[in-house]
Amino acid sequence: MEPMKDYTTQELSQLLQNRQFRILREIFEEYNVVDLAALVDRMPVDEITALFKILPKDKGAELLSYLDPDILEELTNNFTAAQIGGLLEHLFIDDLSDILSELPDELVKKVLSSATPEQRSDINALLSYKENSCGSIMSIDVVTLNLGDSVKEAMATIKKQGKMAETINWCYVVDPKGKLIGYVSLKDILFAKDDAMIEELIDYDVPQVKTEDDQEKAAKLISKYDITAIPVTDLEGILLGIITVDDVLDVVTEEATEDIQKMAAIIPLEDSYVETGIFPMFKSRITWLLVLMISATFTGSIINANNQLLVHITSLAIFIPMLMDTAGNAGSQSSTMVIRGIVVDDMGVKDFVKILWKELRVSFLAGGVLFAVNTLRIGLFMPEVGWTLALVVSATVFIVITLANLVGGLLPLLALAMKQDPAAMASPLITTVIDAVSLTVYFMIAAAVL
Amino acid sequence: MEPMKDYTTQELSQLLQNRQFRILREIFEEYNVVDLAALVDRMPVDEITALFKILPKDKGAELLSYLDPDILEELTNNFTAAQIGGLLEHLFIDDLSDILSELPDELVKKVLSSATPEQRSDINALLSYKENSCGSIMSIDVVTLNLGDSVKEAMATIKKQGKMAETINWCYVVDPKGKLIGYVSLKDILFAKDDAMIEELIDYDVPQVKTEDDQEKAAKLISKYDITAIPVTDLEGILLGIITVDDVLDVVTEEATEDIQKMAAIIPLEDSYVETGIFPMFKSRITWLLVLMISATFTGSIINANNQLLVHITSLAIFIPMLMDTAGNAGSQSSTMVIRGIVVDDMGVKDFVKILWKELRVSFLAGGVLFAVNTLRIGLFMPEVGWTLALVVSATVFIVITLANLVGGLLPLLALAMKQDPAAMASPLITTVIDAVSLTVYFMIAAAVL
Repeated sequence: MEPMKDYTTQELSQLLQNRQFRILREIFEEYNVVDLAALVDRMPVDEITALFKILPKDKGAELLSYLDPDILEELTNNFTAAQIGGLLEHLFIDDLSDILSELPDELVKKVLSSATPEQRSDINALLSYKENSCGSIMSIDVVTLNLGDSVKEAMATIKKQGKMAETINWCYVVDPKGKLIGYVSLKDILFAKDDAMIEELIDYDVPQVKTEDDQEKAAKLISKYDITAIPVTDLEGILLGIITVDDVLDVVTEEATEDIQKMAAIIPLEDSYVETGIFPMFKSRITWLLVLMISATFTGSIINANNQLLVHITSLAIFIPMLMDTAGNAGSQSSTMVIRGIVVDDMGVKDFVKILWKELRVSFLAGGVLFAVNTLRIGLFMPEVGWTLALVVSATVFIVITLANLVGGLLPLLALAMKQDPAAMASPLITTVIDAVSLTVYFMIAAAVL
Repeated sequence: MEPMKDYTTQELSQLLQNRQFRILREIFEEYNVVDLAALVDRMPVDEITALFKILPKDKGAELLSYLDPDILEELTNNFTAAQIGGLLEHLFIDDLSDILSELPDELVKKVLSSATPEQRSDINALLSYKENSCGSIMSIDVVTLNLGDSVKEAMATIKKQGKMAETINWCYVVDPKGKLIGYVSLKDILFAKDDAMIEELIDYDVPQVKTEDDQEKAAKLISKYDITAIPVTDLEGILLGIITVDDVLDVVTEEATEDIQKMAAIIPLEDSYVETGIFPMFKSRITWLLVLMISATFTGSIINANNQLLVHITSLAIFIPMLMDTAGNAGSQSSTMVIRGIVVDDMGVKDFVKILWKELRVSFLAGGVLFAVNTLRIGLFMPEVGWTLALVVSATVFIVITLANLVGGLLPLLALAMKQDPAAMASPLITTVIDAVSLTVYFMIAAAVL
């Protein structure tokens, strides 16, 4: 077999209409199922149904787990119970539970009634884990060995269990009760002598997670220990499944997206921008917009309270937006740095003094530069404002930068100490706090000096 | 061997001083090297040097790649050429090149002079790839098979090449010139009959990257195709190495951090918050602070130009911070959504109309709610302001939310169209643009109505 040309959706439809089934089967044998799913997604559903009839069951099952949820729904409607049963045999339980979570209830029932009792209980167990828990993303097909196995026996087990396992790179050693006691790499087994024993190869120090742990914990451990899979146990230490690094890759991307959204005062969306409807999109944004709109009134009332000052020295008003923006930017810089440090580098409340000290020093440098630039800029290019007001504004910038960096750097730690999500200290919230502080400082200095 | 108790840095030092070398070697045999490196990192350097003398070379090499760069530097100074040579034999070339990139030039020379000529040329090749390119993160130890191999021959090759390979899960099939033509999974080889041929098992459709591709491309392909490794070739298609999903995990985290920092108007840092010194931290923040401080003056001049209006209707000033903040928040929400959509879901300039239409509809919903809440709030609770001004302010909010969402949603696309990084459309920049727009709209409506 030689590599083949690239196909289009139209060409696949054509082949199907011309009953070129042998060529179609060859294409599905040869091409990557992800690319094929993208082509099939655009075919009419009755053609896709016909396609499933001629595909080998294992290829069909693989294709199924990459199709669009809407198409899945229509397909499941079209399929007979026997067809579903045939496909089920070839699906990984975790892929199947992913598919089921996309289907409406009545179709879930239709699928489950075609499943074997064993599959049904596995699926029910998987569906019962909390969203974003390790249990909910684990795969239950894992190779297990016994401490007393020889390498030869282990290889036989691997060949038997490995066909359906997510990975055979790591084999987990369990006691007779199923309790996880250690692991062996396939490499070690392959490179050992046939009469070596698993007991000689086992590594007892095995990083692991519990089913109810947050999926982020699995991601962190896999990244920390540079491993490609981590076993999942229940509270008694019984091995229940495995999470592989490719599952975790999606977790890391999702969690980053969530954090980014929270930091921009958005309640995280479940789906991507394109897939999210208008109303969920509206809901995810309106809460913070309302809260922040009302709290910004407080800043307004500070301006109102200093109305007399503003009427007397009208130039004061020119610098209000600049002060608010600069303080807000500094606060969002420092909060972003610290929030990301907490998520990625395990910074915590213990680093309070370190962060305080670092933000203070950075503030003095940045504040100093902004002070100088601002004074010269106003003094030289805005003669109508005058040097005194220039110095008042610049002094305010210096103080406000320092306050903003401290508030931005330390509020996320406060959130952490109160067991809240630091990313929820959205920079808009911090900005609102800092706005009020900046204006108060500004008017106090102006009233004292002018 | 049974699992052992947890050790502390003090206990390791104690064991070393008491010359309990056998126990130490057992500990290093049994425990995870990542945890041990964290303990060893806190030992005095002369003790670490002594520790390396008693450790088996392979354990020492493994430990080395997890130690702190500062300690590495001192250790390399202490080691003899023979010691370095011994450790080099057991280091993966990519780990070695990571270590070298942390060492000062004279120590790099010391290490390279102890390397074999072959290692030297491999390292030089790796060090020559651009930062963040696929070449710079790939591992060159990969199992290669020939099309004409039988499964039995393939197993022999795997056993020979696999010891040093990063993964043996995937074996790559190359032609006599080294050109990548396909791949075979270890699973397929293990489960095939001994007289089967690689030609029957090969998959020709192999996702791959070039050495000079950005590392993000490898991350995207690995995630898209749910694979655990991707081969790296040169422009002629010659197989040069492999990137595994665990390498990519770090890439995804780093890229997310970079994007988050850019969106908060920070020039991305190379190191973590804790590891970054005051001056680099200052530099990463000051540029945007300066640019945005000066551009915010423009907003101030809009206030200045409308000074007469403000003096006549002093209540107008109360709502300036609220308008600026609300518009800024809406803009940062929409820009964040679209920027993340571009990075994660491959949205692009082609989605212009889709984004425009979605942002318009969300704006009408959110703007409508804010209009109602704001009118009632001001009208009912701020009698001194009056219903007319309440309506003026609320109408401004509605218009400004819509403009902010359109600017926030479409500026990242403009950046993309101009081949710039959309994340560099930092929300503070967008906020500054939107501030000016909001105030202009506010004063125009106020002047017309009042």
